[in-house]
Amino acid sequence: MTKLEKLTPAQVEAGLARLDEWSTLNDAIQRTYLFKDFNAAIAFVNQIAAFAEAADHHPDILIRYNKVTLTLSTHDAGGITEKDFALAEKADAAV
Amino acid sequence: MTKLEKLTPAQVEAGLARLDEWSTLNDAIQRTYLFKDFNAAIAFVNQIAAFAEAADHHPDILIRYNKVTLTLSTHDAGGITEKDFALAEKADAAV
Repeated sequence: MTKLEKLTPAQVEAGLARLDEWSTLNDAIQRTYLFKDFNAAIAFVNQIAAFAEAADHHPDILIRYNKVTLTLSTHDAGGITEKDFALAEKADAAV
Repeated sequence: MTKLEKLTPAQVEAGLARLDEWSTLNDAIQRTYLFKDFNAAIAFVNQIAAFAEAADHHPDILIRYNKVTLTLSTHDAGGITEKDFALAEKADAAV
């Protein structure tokens, strides 16, 4: 399962370069999305929840009124993997 | 609007004494709920979202797989008010 190998710092940098507004925080990648209101934020969270279940990969999700922060890490691999970038791309496409 | 007045520390203590598993964190009250899985956690978050919209009072919500942390504060009042305890009670009743 190549996909579950922890990425090297160079691979993480290359992954971040392909995405907007994501950054690293310790051994995770993180982005905060801004929505027009709370209901729009909750609708996004439900989309993310469906993606997470489909991929069996669950981000930490913080909702603060119209802001949603996703924090992605692969605990089994002890860091950031391709799975995290795959879910980040799906989340970005859902906005 | 008496309900929007910031509670005194003694009033906060009295409020916490009526609830299970809530504690104060700075100028907020907080509880973490444990569910059987991620989908159960998301279902709870959707219930909380409906309560929050009905009350026009929105907690911070953190989802970590099967754990949901609610953090309640009344920003307009600069601290904890009866609104926070009212929403906490509704959340507890939804579990």
